[in-house]
Amino acid sequence: MLSQALMQLVGDGIFITLVGSIAASLTTVSFLPQIVKGYRTKHMKDVSPYLMALYASGTTLWLAYGMFKDDWVIIIANALGTAFNLLLLYMKHLYRRSSS
Amino acid sequence: MLSQALMQLVGDGIFITLVGSIAASLTTVSFLPQIVKGYRTKHMKDVSPYLMALYASGTTLWLAYGMFKDDWVIIIANALGTAFNLLLLYMKHLYRRSSS
Repeated sequence: MLSQALMQLVGDGIFITLVGSIAASLTTVSFLPQIVKGYRTKHMKDVSPYLMALYASGTTLWLAYGMFKDDWVIIIANALGTAFNLLLLYMKHLYRRSSS
Repeated sequence: MLSQALMQLVGDGIFITLVGSIAASLTTVSFLPQIVKGYRTKHMKDVSPYLMALYASGTTLWLAYGMFKDDWVIIIANALGTAFNLLLLYMKHLYRRSSS
């Protein structure tokens, strides 16, 4: 019964879309613990600013890609991903005194 | 001439694929500076392990998504993304003494 329902989902492509949506959610929210940790410790010496800068550049292009494709999962995930990484970059700059 | 060639690319969808490929490359290589920084300083106290763990979980699902869709850009980018983040997680564990 369950496997039959699962096959139906796979057949419909809903399963694949679901996997992609969970994947996009996980990679996007993954930056939240770093924001919380940075905010609590006010210390981001060990975090590379190039990680955030390159990542934000990438998600900005993903955002454009999502707009071209009219894909809202890609648009929302990468708008948040860009915002989170620009915030981290700003925090890194803000805490540079206590981080040096 | 150039704008005509560009319109052709947009029409063919090659331009959109190119944007997506550059976006995937940027988000994937963004973790390399963090690996280099961690390896050089042997210090990763400020880096959240949840960032790497959540991100690697996400890219593993993206990998499955790429396999379902038979999309090699997604497969290669996320195989590397998973590897980079598992390596960072291992480095975080390895340098925990000098990080405490």
